[in-house]
Amino acid sequence: MANSKYEYVKSFEQPDLLLPSTWIVVRIDGRGFHKLSDRYGFVKPNDRRALDLMNAAAAEVMKELPDLCIAYGVSDEYSFAFHPSCQLFERRSAKLVTTIVSTFTGYYIYLWSVYFPDMPLQPTGLPSFDGRAVMYPNSRLLRDYMSWRQVDCHINNLYNTTFWTMVLKGGMSNTDAEQELKGTISSDKNEILFKRFGINYNNEEEIYKKGSVIYRQYQLEDVKPKAESGKGQEEEEEEPTPVQGGIPSRSQQDKIRKLRRKAQVVIDHVDIIKDEFWERRPWIISGKPGKLPAESK
Amino acid sequence: MANSKYEYVKSFEQPDLLLPSTWIVVRIDGRGFHKLSDRYGFVKPNDRRALDLMNAAAAEVMKELPDLCIAYGVSDEYSFAFHPSCQLFERRSAKLVTTIVSTFTGYYIYLWSVYFPDMPLQPTGLPSFDGRAVMYPNSRLLRDYMSWRQVDCHINNLYNTTFWTMVLKGGMSNTDAEQELKGTISSDKNEILFKRFGINYNNEEEIYKKGSVIYRQYQLEDVKPKAESGKGQEEEEEEPTPVQGGIPSRSQQDKIRKLRRKAQVVIDHVDIIKDEFWERRPWIISGKPGKLPAESK
Amino acid sequence: MANSKYEYVKSFEQPDLLLPSTWIVVRIDGRGFHKLSDRYGFVKPNDRRALDLMNAAAAEVMKELPDLCIAYGVSDEYSFAFHPSCQLFERRSAKLVTTIVSTFTGYYIYLWSVYFPDMPLQPTGLPSFDGRAVMYPNSRLLRDYMSWRQVDCHINNLYNTTFWTMVLKGGMSNTDAEQELKGTISSDKNEILFKRFGINYNNEEEIYKKGSVIYRQYQLEDVKPKAESGKGQEEEEEEPTPVQGGIPSRSQQDKIRKLRRKAQVVIDHVDIIKDEFWERRPWIISGKPGKLPAESK
Amino acid sequence: MANSKYEYVKSFEQPDLLLPSTWIVVRIDGRGFHKLSDRYGFVKPNDRRALDLMNAAAAEVMKELPDLCIAYGVSDEYSFAFHPSCQLFERRSAKLVTTIVSTFTGYYIYLWSVYFPDMPLQPTGLPSFDGRAVMYPNSRLLRDYMSWRQVDCHINNLYNTTFWTMVLKGGMSNTDAEQELKGTISSDKNEILFKRFGINYNNEEEIYKKGSVIYRQYQLEDVKPKAESGKGQEEEEEEPTPVQGGIPSRSQQDKIRKLRRKAQVVIDHVDIIKDEFWERRPWIISGKPGKLPAESK
Repeated sequence: MANSKYEYVKSFEQPDLLLPSTWIVVRIDGRGFHKLSDRYGFVKPNDRRALDLMNAAAAEVMKELPDLCIAYGVSDEYSFAFHPSCQLFERRSAKLVTTIVSTFTGYYIYLWSVYFPDMPLQPTGLPSFDGRAVMYPNSRLLRDYMSWRQVDCHINNLYNTTFWTMVLKGGMSNTDAEQELKGTISSDKNEILFKRFGINYNNEEEIYKKGSVIYRQYQLEDVKPKAESGKGQEEEEEEPTPVQGGIPSRSQQDKIRKLRRKAQVVIDHVDIIKDEFWERRPWIISGKPGKLPAESK
Repeated sequence: MANSKYEYVKSFEQPDLLLPSTWIVVRIDGRGFHKLSDRYGFVKPNDRRALDLMNAAAAEVMKELPDLCIAYGVSDEYSFAFHPSCQLFERRSAKLVTTIVSTFTGYYIYLWSVYFPDMPLQPTGLPSFDGRAVMYPNSRLLRDYMSWRQVDCHINNLYNTTFWTMVLKGGMSNTDAEQELKGTISSDKNEILFKRFGINYNNEEEIYKKGSVIYRQYQLEDVKPKAESGKGQEEEEEEPTPVQGGIPSRSQQDKIRKLRRKAQVVIDHVDIIKDEFWERRPWIISGKPGKLPAESK
Repeated sequence: MANSKYEYVKSFEQPDLLLPSTWIVVRIDGRGFHKLSDRYGFVKPNDRRALDLMNAAAAEVMKELPDLCIAYGVSDEYSFAFHPSCQLFERRSAKLVTTIVSTFTGYYIYLWSVYFPDMPLQPTGLPSFDGRAVMYPNSRLLRDYMSWRQVDCHINNLYNTTFWTMVLKGGMSNTDAEQELKGTISSDKNEILFKRFGINYNNEEEIYKKGSVIYRQYQLEDVKPKAESGKGQEEEEEEPTPVQGGIPSRSQQDKIRKLRRKAQVVIDHVDIIKDEFWERRPWIISGKPGKLPAESK
Repeated sequence: MANSKYEYVKSFEQPDLLLPSTWIVVRIDGRGFHKLSDRYGFVKPNDRRALDLMNAAAAEVMKELPDLCIAYGVSDEYSFAFHPSCQLFERRSAKLVTTIVSTFTGYYIYLWSVYFPDMPLQPTGLPSFDGRAVMYPNSRLLRDYMSWRQVDCHINNLYNTTFWTMVLKGGMSNTDAEQELKGTISSDKNEILFKRFGINYNNEEEIYKKGSVIYRQYQLEDVKPKAESGKGQEEEEEEPTPVQGGIPSRSQQDKIRKLRRKAQVVIDHVDIIKDEFWERRPWIISGKPGKLPAESK
């Protein structure tokens, strides 16, 4: 339509394209969730309903954006990873981040009543999330990022489990519990749980200890025994063969997107630090859809 | 808590601070709202419920973020402006944009049933919004940005009103109406509306013709008659006196934020291109809270 | 010419356009000049030859880039300012900065023998400079930037003058002089200079006390007496009337560039903190060439 | 020293850190060298003195910045590559680019008289260079970048050699030569050279056909015959084992820098597109200094 003399202001918009051939991680975080968890009486140290709601919202994001390879969530945060070959929105940073944040928030609000049927959202201070994009130049770094989040999950959960057990079951004040835990290492906390409360931390639920990982499900690959696996591993860690430097054509992108939509999106609570997770699911790093389980018959 | 050997991945996060002493406009846009408006049967050319819902969500954003000076909305887009002196989130771009996008989306979903009581949201493809931040170095440019959006509103609304009248009342096909309107100017469209359908475009509702502007309400200033106003205007267009180059201290910020929270957030449908709107509400450009209406007595 | 299959790597170049309608300051700094000044026996506290060489190189930069409005130098650093309306190299940051750094370095090396005829450059560790661009959204901030550099010049020169007088004339060791100056304020240093060495700091050369400012010379404007100058000052501080938001057309740019080339580039050692300097040379802030001195007759 | 009230302007400087673990290529280009080559009568199609001067300046840059792994030059441009593990200047983009541009320019001017003894530089319009940094996330992309430049060298040199032979030896006008070459492919140009002028393009000097590559010399590695080399190649293409994600400690950096300074900087005119060049010099991609030739005895 007709232009106006004011249209020059468009020139102030600055490009924000993320570097090609680089993993893009979008991490979102709940805003003020400490206060929010008090307001809606989230169970300590972990509220299963709240985590299931986070996972449900994240799974919807994965379904709406087939370009996403994997997501990992813990507490009120979630990280979503786009493949280096991803061309969605021309890799514009703000567009990628806001689309994820908005889609996630929408489902979080929409599905709230499913997970908190007796606790309606109050009309002010609705839950909200902020987000940011971070680039990782290769898959080793992406895996280290994911490991970082899962180690954090472990460290925080062991602390929180011990702290809240001391407070809720041990009758200690928050301050006393905090004081006693200061400077302790993992084995100390395990011992407190076991000796004082008969709790074996290993028996805690996996979702609390490992967080949640979401990905598309294809037929799992066999893991080669270590002796032979040298080569296999190397291949896996290699960057995918570049198509014009890893930039697939538009029609290739559409085809891959379509294939990805067909795969089931699954939520898992497993170790993503060791190689096994990635070796059995090579499609996550390669960005190439695997065989659908149905096809295996 | 304890660090892990993976923590180095944090160093890949890159700073994204917006330039100090510069207006920040965050514009959000509905994603795929063409399809969405079909799905939920939005009335053509304007669906009052949908616009009221946009305005309600935007008003909540303004209430939650007192640093915002003004917002302007049309169709499925909304622009929010932070003052040059704003220090919220250290002016980190992604944080500012995602907070607005997330808060807006949350309220849009949450309030949907209020405005569309008979049309529940469907569980896939929820409404979502993307967003971006644009910087404008002075208030003249901010006003030109706002004018750009309001001129766009006018141009689009006149076109849409004429087009849909020709189709819905005139029984024309979409293609025929489009064909006839090609190359027409405003007066042509006004004439089609008036001569064929007896519609005076000037009598259309202001919300459709002008869009919606949201701001905090203080006591309006008198507009000086033009003859004397030379100086007044100049003052108004000047950038605010710099406090350390326009960067207020933390306690000044808190004080201003508190004052802003007290003001009523109002939704208006008025001309924001001419000077009058801005002259009568100098607090928008100055960033300094005006007198509350109650105080005037 | 023909493209190769490797050409896709061009897509990794990221845009780096500086915000329109914003002052651009490119500051360059000598690399390792402390060591260099020892190597070539620069006179302490100020080496007139070295400063004259800096100024000569900066003046050549001003002549080669008519888009520059003003430059200010002190010690081994120089700041060059482009007007908000500048469109040179589409305002690409790297291009603007490297062009200035390269041109400056070239003249510094080329003219070295003129200022140090008995001290030829040695073939390793040639003098070199780094640089960066900083944006300032309005002329108040540009002036504050310039004031910052000139205040720094004053503070450093008073310190250095006192320190080297104590060492060179007073026979103190570097450590003792440093120790005695620790915690002193300006008046203390003035007193040391005057009482012990009979030196009145005010009589030191202006180039050392004020640094060097370079600009194009037009006919100076009369400064209105303060009583009346209120309005004049305001006008001066206003941003220039925007041409499409301050973005002149290509032919306007060429015309202005041509006019600027005609003006003489002068090197001055005067106060640039107070208003007078700017009021008498309004073309610096306005970006509009003034009247050439010749025209005044 | 004492701060001034103007110091707040420092906050307008924005960080420009390049992504960690990513190759950084700084490419510099002669400004207006077409005109410059006329002015100083550069020989067509290649002026050996001008190329030798470019190479000499680039070699000095390599010596002054041991963090550089490789450089490649053709015509009036030069590309310098920093390793992904490089931490020089905290990877600040402007600092890296301007240091290279300034050092290069300095040596170019300083050494001019060595290569053009009879052709002194004129005091206006000195040669100057602009520059930019581009990031490449892995070594495959770096090699594709280098291949891109070398293919460009070949394409341009074949064209220029043919064109200037037609003009200078064949007596054709520029326009006629240009016209005839329009649409020709490599074999056509080879044929023109051979059939009309008896010139076998393959016998042209390597520096013209291949450009110039500069690197540090260590003991060359044997190239494994292709049959066995599968694994070797893979290893070579792998990213180096990350030390904290490829970020070496400060003392590791210093140690590596020291080792690199010991290596001889050599200028070569060889194929850098095929694997051999890189396989025999694995230190370029690995960033780990090889064995010094002397050590091999």
